[in-house]
Amino acid sequence: MAIVVQKYGGSSVATAEKIKNVAQRVGKVFDGGDQVVVVVSAMGDTTDDLIKLAGQVTSDPHPREMDVLLSTGELVASTLLAMAIKNLGYKAISLSGAQAGIKTDTTYRKARIIKIETKRILAELEKGQIVIVAGFQGITDDMDVTTLGRGGSDTSAVALAAALGARICERLTDTDGIYSADPRVVPEAFRLVEIGYEEMLELATYGNKVMQPRAIELAELYNIPIRVASSFNDNPGTLIHGGVSMEVRNKVRSVCYDMDVAKISVLGIPDKPGIAASLFVALAKAGISVDTIVQNSSVNKIADLTFTVTKDQIIEAMKVAKPIAKKLGASDIVADSELGKVSIVGTGMQNTPGFAAKMFDTLSANGINIELISTSEIRITCIIKESKVKEAVRALHKAFEVEV
Amino acid sequence: MAIVVQKYGGSSVATAEKIKNVAQRVGKVFDGGDQVVVVVSAMGDTTDDLIKLAGQVTSDPHPREMDVLLSTGELVASTLLAMAIKNLGYKAISLSGAQAGIKTDTTYRKARIIKIETKRILAELEKGQIVIVAGFQGITDDMDVTTLGRGGSDTSAVALAAALGARICERLTDTDGIYSADPRVVPEAFRLVEIGYEEMLELATYGNKVMQPRAIELAELYNIPIRVASSFNDNPGTLIHGGVSMEVRNKVRSVCYDMDVAKISVLGIPDKPGIAASLFVALAKAGISVDTIVQNSSVNKIADLTFTVTKDQIIEAMKVAKPIAKKLGASDIVADSELGKVSIVGTGMQNTPGFAAKMFDTLSANGINIELISTSEIRITCIIKESKVKEAVRALHKAFEVEV
Repeated sequence: MAIVVQKYGGSSVATAEKIKNVAQRVGKVFDGGDQVVVVVSAMGDTTDDLIKLAGQVTSDPHPREMDVLLSTGELVASTLLAMAIKNLGYKAISLSGAQAGIKTDTTYRKARIIKIETKRILAELEKGQIVIVAGFQGITDDMDVTTLGRGGSDTSAVALAAALGARICERLTDTDGIYSADPRVVPEAFRLVEIGYEEMLELATYGNKVMQPRAIELAELYNIPIRVASSFNDNPGTLIHGGVSMEVRNKVRSVCYDMDVAKISVLGIPDKPGIAASLFVALAKAGISVDTIVQNSSVNKIADLTFTVTKDQIIEAMKVAKPIAKKLGASDIVADSELGKVSIVGTGMQNTPGFAAKMFDTLSANGINIELISTSEIRITCIIKESKVKEAVRALHKAFEVEV
Repeated sequence: MAIVVQKYGGSSVATAEKIKNVAQRVGKVFDGGDQVVVVVSAMGDTTDDLIKLAGQVTSDPHPREMDVLLSTGELVASTLLAMAIKNLGYKAISLSGAQAGIKTDTTYRKARIIKIETKRILAELEKGQIVIVAGFQGITDDMDVTTLGRGGSDTSAVALAAALGARICERLTDTDGIYSADPRVVPEAFRLVEIGYEEMLELATYGNKVMQPRAIELAELYNIPIRVASSFNDNPGTLIHGGVSMEVRNKVRSVCYDMDVAKISVLGIPDKPGIAASLFVALAKAGISVDTIVQNSSVNKIADLTFTVTKDQIIEAMKVAKPIAKKLGASDIVADSELGKVSIVGTGMQNTPGFAAKMFDTLSANGINIELISTSEIRITCIIKESKVKEAVRALHKAFEVEV
């Protein structure tokens, strides 16, 4: 008997009716002869509602308390799902992160899983139980509850699949799978049958919100295949795995975008060593995540330094950067919050010239100006005006004839 | 430094604003020089909402799952209160029942506390923390979450007070204290300054909903004084303790009532041994709690047996009792759901004749017929028509000149 780990997202368990639907799906998998471990997220908007509630009590919620607060959302969903499954005549039991043996470090709000003690889960599976695990949460050695950060239930599911030696991790939500582009933007976009870990990781990092990058990295590390599919129909979805066939590897697989980009340019800095360091150390200390960084080639020992942050951090980032820019002797510092990024992703780009040129050409032909470029071996990203992003996605999807 | 245990009811923490109010009250106690442990109930109607949610998923929620589900309400309230207290500049930490060391048996939905391992609480108090404990919940030896039954947070608070050797347990809610009668029924009713455990136990058992009988028993056992007061004002409330002064002990202290009474009479049973047993064993097996039982003196070896249950159990009770009545050769079985009880309570009644006579006289003078009577050493209860209960309470409050 093999173990299947299924993970249901918040939208799949948003109401009692939907929980009953999930219960039936889980039952079918069990009937198919597998042992089943189900990881659930909190119902619908529960997590946001709890964050809002904390915000009404204090402007500065303590991370340890916040984690216990947020963990309750998944406890509620897991117990209700266990009840619904039992109601269908199956044996089922819900386990909290602590009971499931998910041990984490003490980094509240975004704890990392250290190990999973699978004893209890295995014992329950042996008894013929369907095991429902509250996602997104773990426990420290001091028995304090932690949460794994936004989308952490994906990480719970993949980590459990790895620890249990599951044959597959199925991630079921309101999304049908991974698409060649966001179907709301590109009507012709189609579902990919399969995609490699590294491609999926780039997509997730550059705007495809279906899965958290962290969960994909973990799946790659332990070579756990993930099937991303809908909990509302029986479409096969997309298989994320390491064995994607050669034929589909020489193409752009998907076009993704992200509207959440703001840019700061520090202009006319005397170009000497340590300048970038002084700025980015200060930004890091202020808790600001810097994404793309570009420094132009120095002309007459004067350089321009540009970097991007998320939009909600632009004000704080300017507050930190301005005095440093002044101290460094920069001639000016300017911010632009109306940016977005568009990326093409595919292992086919690796060692294959021409993709970048074609991307720039396509954007140019559509009158879209490129502000910044960043690349990996299997991805090219252009930062452009936010207002042009969707147009760019459509143009690129067409130009690259993205294929299965 | 002494320890004070405070318990805040659901209405006291029903909103973010109210939680902030509670935080200030807790802070004041800490400022007064005591170490403070706070037990909280779930916010407002949370518990009822969760029960409703479970009911939408299954008609037969599994007790173990239900307990985890319900326990989340108190976790939410405890973390929010901890945040609010920290926000005022105090050190505070929330603990779940498990973290607070509240060990129970495995009777889900109404677990009994076996012991409290106070190590963690004491360690946190030593660090200068205000400790917030999620009420109503505990943990079994297998680390499964249990709840203590309705009103269980009172039990949590008193048990913690006992285990920690607290100097007092303060129970703060939307009620001002214990009254000589329900002020909504008797406008002249007044707050009692103090009341004995045994009197309070009778009041709680016979209709005063302020505290659960179980918590009072526990307080008496460990001699923990309980101050019942409002969380919305600074009135002194009522002190429940063992040292009530002699002077107030020779009076009726309070008149209480309970509308939730239904009666079943099994008429004309041949009077032989074992009859009551066969009926009440069957009722107990069906989970029906029988309250008052009266059997009239047998005339010609034919007896009538009457007992009361709560109104929500009358249909089930009749279903169980009917076939047994038939088998016993009873001439008839009749139910009456429109009853209530009114009680007078006071240690002064002990060994003092005349209270019962005066009670019956008063009811009779007001044209109120008595259906059944039950008594303890310090209480007399009359079961009467539900429609007459409030009138009876007013008449008795006046007749006995209930005093402080």
